[in-house]
Amino acid sequence: MSYSFDPNRMYRMPTHFGPAYGPRQSPDGVSFNGKISHKTTTVSVSFLSNATQLRKLLPPGFSLHGDPIVNIFASYMKEIQWLAGRGYNVLGVTLNAEFSGKKEKVHGPFLTVLWENLADPIITGREELGFSKIYCELPEIRISSDFAAISASWLGFNFLNLEVSSLKSITPPYPMGPDESEPDGLLHYKYIPRTGQWGSPDVAYPVISPASNPNRKILEQFVGNGHFKWNVARWEDMPTQYTIINTLADLEIKEFTSGSLKRTIGDHDLSQINQKILE
Amino acid sequence: MSYSFDPNRMYRMPTHFGPAYGPRQSPDGVSFNGKISHKTTTVSVSFLSNATQLRKLLPPGFSLHGDPIVNIFASYMKEIQWLAGRGYNVLGVTLNAEFSGKKEKVHGPFLTVLWENLADPIITGREELGFSKIYCELPEIRISSDFAAISASWLGFNFLNLEVSSLKSITPPYPMGPDESEPDGLLHYKYIPRTGQWGSPDVAYPVISPASNPNRKILEQFVGNGHFKWNVARWEDMPTQYTIINTLADLEIKEFTSGSLKRTIGDHDLSQINQKILE
Amino acid sequence: MSYSFDPNRMYRMPTHFGPAYGPRQSPDGVSFNGKISHKTTTVSVSFLSNATQLRKLLPPGFSLHGDPIVNIFASYMKEIQWLAGRGYNVLGVTLNAEFSGKKEKVHGPFLTVLWENLADPIITGREELGFSKIYCELPEIRISSDFAAISASWLGFNFLNLEVSSLKSITPPYPMGPDESEPDGLLHYKYIPRTGQWGSPDVAYPVISPASNPNRKILEQFVGNGHFKWNVARWEDMPTQYTIINTLADLEIKEFTSGSLKRTIGDHDLSQINQKILE
Amino acid sequence: MSYSFDPNRMYRMPTHFGPAYGPRQSPDGVSFNGKISHKTTTVSVSFLSNATQLRKLLPPGFSLHGDPIVNIFASYMKEIQWLAGRGYNVLGVTLNAEFSGKKEKVHGPFLTVLWENLADPIITGREELGFSKIYCELPEIRISSDFAAISASWLGFNFLNLEVSSLKSITPPYPMGPDESEPDGLLHYKYIPRTGQWGSPDVAYPVISPASNPNRKILEQFVGNGHFKWNVARWEDMPTQYTIINTLADLEIKEFTSGSLKRTIGDHDLSQINQKILE
Repeated sequence: MSYSFDPNRMYRMPTHFGPAYGPRQSPDGVSFNGKISHKTTTVSVSFLSNATQLRKLLPPGFSLHGDPIVNIFASYMKEIQWLAGRGYNVLGVTLNAEFSGKKEKVHGPFLTVLWENLADPIITGREELGFSKIYCELPEIRISSDFAAISASWLGFNFLNLEVSSLKSITPPYPMGPDESEPDGLLHYKYIPRTGQWGSPDVAYPVISPASNPNRKILEQFVGNGHFKWNVARWEDMPTQYTIINTLADLEIKEFTSGSLKRTIGDHDLSQINQKILE
Repeated sequence: MSYSFDPNRMYRMPTHFGPAYGPRQSPDGVSFNGKISHKTTTVSVSFLSNATQLRKLLPPGFSLHGDPIVNIFASYMKEIQWLAGRGYNVLGVTLNAEFSGKKEKVHGPFLTVLWENLADPIITGREELGFSKIYCELPEIRISSDFAAISASWLGFNFLNLEVSSLKSITPPYPMGPDESEPDGLLHYKYIPRTGQWGSPDVAYPVISPASNPNRKILEQFVGNGHFKWNVARWEDMPTQYTIINTLADLEIKEFTSGSLKRTIGDHDLSQINQKILE
Repeated sequence: MSYSFDPNRMYRMPTHFGPAYGPRQSPDGVSFNGKISHKTTTVSVSFLSNATQLRKLLPPGFSLHGDPIVNIFASYMKEIQWLAGRGYNVLGVTLNAEFSGKKEKVHGPFLTVLWENLADPIITGREELGFSKIYCELPEIRISSDFAAISASWLGFNFLNLEVSSLKSITPPYPMGPDESEPDGLLHYKYIPRTGQWGSPDVAYPVISPASNPNRKILEQFVGNGHFKWNVARWEDMPTQYTIINTLADLEIKEFTSGSLKRTIGDHDLSQINQKILE
Repeated sequence: MSYSFDPNRMYRMPTHFGPAYGPRQSPDGVSFNGKISHKTTTVSVSFLSNATQLRKLLPPGFSLHGDPIVNIFASYMKEIQWLAGRGYNVLGVTLNAEFSGKKEKVHGPFLTVLWENLADPIITGREELGFSKIYCELPEIRISSDFAAISASWLGFNFLNLEVSSLKSITPPYPMGPDESEPDGLLHYKYIPRTGQWGSPDVAYPVISPASNPNRKILEQFVGNGHFKWNVARWEDMPTQYTIINTLADLEIKEFTSGSLKRTIGDHDLSQINQKILE
């Protein structure tokens, strides 16, 4: 009498209204095309940090790979097809890491946290992909003359300001940024707690977003001087996220290694998604 | 070299920054008190619907219980302690159902969907509790003279308007509303997809929020005439949620059975949470 | 002992903190350049309406000019220099009108109302320029495949949805749209009530934004089929604006005359502003 | 052929759609009742400052009155009848001042600036009343245990945080707060620039909101320790308001003189509005 699940379709809670549409599943008759979806403006700053501090952020099975470089990037996306032409914004922090499992050994940027300003991709990203996505406000990037600036807040508490100034346009061929040098892919650790058995997980496994972005085309790229400031938070300021902000604010900055602004068009299309569990 | 999990603490993604604070876990030195947290204004409308339609919304193991009554409620919460005094709003739809498992047989309102206007409780609620929480905009309830009205939108698409008019104050003892008559508890179905194996779940089990709300005190209660209108959505209007809206908009309304407005103070405190998997 | 006004600077309330910066006055050392500021995406739909209805919207001294065509346009602006690289969005409705005064006779689009989603330009636009600007929410335009769609809401009440579909790219030279065919300029009626003498104005005069937009460069242009729907509002839905919505919703649509999507860069620069009172 | 103005009704731009409804003019059949509209929660902090600094904020005809005390208050209003049951929030800064004109000599708190988080009352307040209202984001006040905290931002730039801690409930009769001790009324300076003649005003006169609030009833009151921090802004951070923030941030704090939290119901009703120009 109740409904049943179709093993050929993807579901998310609530499962009671049928298959869930999103970036990896469209209704019949709607197709997503990675060549035109979507338009992205990305600002990115990297710095050399302290290996001892970074290691403490790595889950079981992971270790640092190469220099202890941290990358902070923010992307402002428009005209996303799976959102019927809407957009949303993200802010992420990565470290260069490797995972060594029973069967696989891979390396690439490890996504410690990804803030997004829209709940729908947060839900799909966490539950389907294992991305460590959480929410914040990300007002549109400000670009004027030769600077670009972003800010991030949680319910009005402004926890990060980041700017790239003295921007200079560069000509193709464009160099790879630290957020794109993904030898094997983008690394994650998926974790879902078990209901009622609070210390135990329902899900706890490493995940990779295999490298490949054949549809992304760079339209414009600029390099400049990066600068950012985390505003240390109390529990009162960000009761669900202050430990994250304060850990990131505490990372040693030995040297800024890059700052850039980039406009791109295109991204993965639906058929290219091969996110997988690492073993 | 990497971090390890403390089995006595609760975690959510990102797990790399230590235990996750939220409604069920506070930092040392912070205590939550259900007697003063939080203040809630709830508007609620119930109607007799069509059993055949409602059964199609029930997951495996569930069946209808009693009359096919649907309850739509919206709660506007303030001064929530786990959010350090902030608030958020919710909009839910329940059916009276029962679950019959190998070991347990329980009945109570089945929460088909719960919209919330803040991502942080959506994440904790989905992953820790198995609530079918999704996002929408819920502007503050409007109360003036003898009517109360709410609206719900997703990125500007106004999918529900609900009003209770000709409100009359009632005096204690207050009757139980359909959203409170929880013989055994509030029922859910937790589902998390398995990464890369898209038709398969990592998690798929029924869950109960056992009834008990000793701290909730009703400050004021009114009854009145309920009325609501779902605005049918296309994929273009709500690409991730239109199937939900349209299914709910299609439910037959045989008769309105209640409409109310209520102001309460207090809720569960931390020690009372005994959400559990049903077997 | 109190401050005094510098007759060479512009002021807005509060005047107590010195001259007011904005689109027409920058701090020393900051210059605005109309060639790069700002980037705009505009969707526009025109229709032939009923002259008798339109005349009722014209203030003293104004009459219709040419066909009774109404244009509804929405512009989404980014990288505005006077906002230090931020953007905002507008939604306007114009009629073709002429003003005949004691000294001047001019014609052009008459701006009956301009919604904006940011209070700062609303304030400067009303008080400095006499634009009939009011507030609404204007979520980012949705563009996907061959359609563009916008919506407008006031505190969650979605009062307008407008789409242009079957978009086809056109090649230069680009035709003038109805929102640009400004023979003499854009026409307005500035009105400020007198405090305490409620039926009397402090200010009541016609204003023109003289035509000239040498810095605007069209980057892309598309034509398509326009369609829109005003949602009739009660006082309860939009207590400050329902009369506006309902008057516009009531306008007869005899024939759609154009629909377009356009991306431009550049606009007026500071030195070109010659908004003036019509006599 | 065009419309004409009815001298017995109030208008605001756009005037083309008939009389403008708002706090001082309701549609036929709708009445506002100050006894139940509206519910307000106010946090307030006062401090003794530097008379020389404060005098520089006074417009022509004004001087300081009594001690150079500055009051910062924020009010969170709900169930406002003229908004059909909606609410909005305000943040203001007052000084004790007197105005000495040709005919009148009055004293009371001078409202240097009033931020509001909704454009509709900003427009009516500036143009009808001469209040120096501007826009900012004012997320709901946070109240938990014995503290209350507010923050204010402009497009994500968090310019003020204010808290009152160690709150203690006081019992009636309630003392007057500095925001209520209005011997003659609340003082303002209304200023509207003249279009095209940028250094000249269309309107420039002092205004008073005569004291009288017979409908306001205090429900609860607490006193505590006030604390606040203005975050100094660059033009890039708040291009239209940074001079205001920085002037207020620069005010000397000699001593905190009061901190309070208060819940009230009721306010002026429509018939009591006697805002007037001072001569």
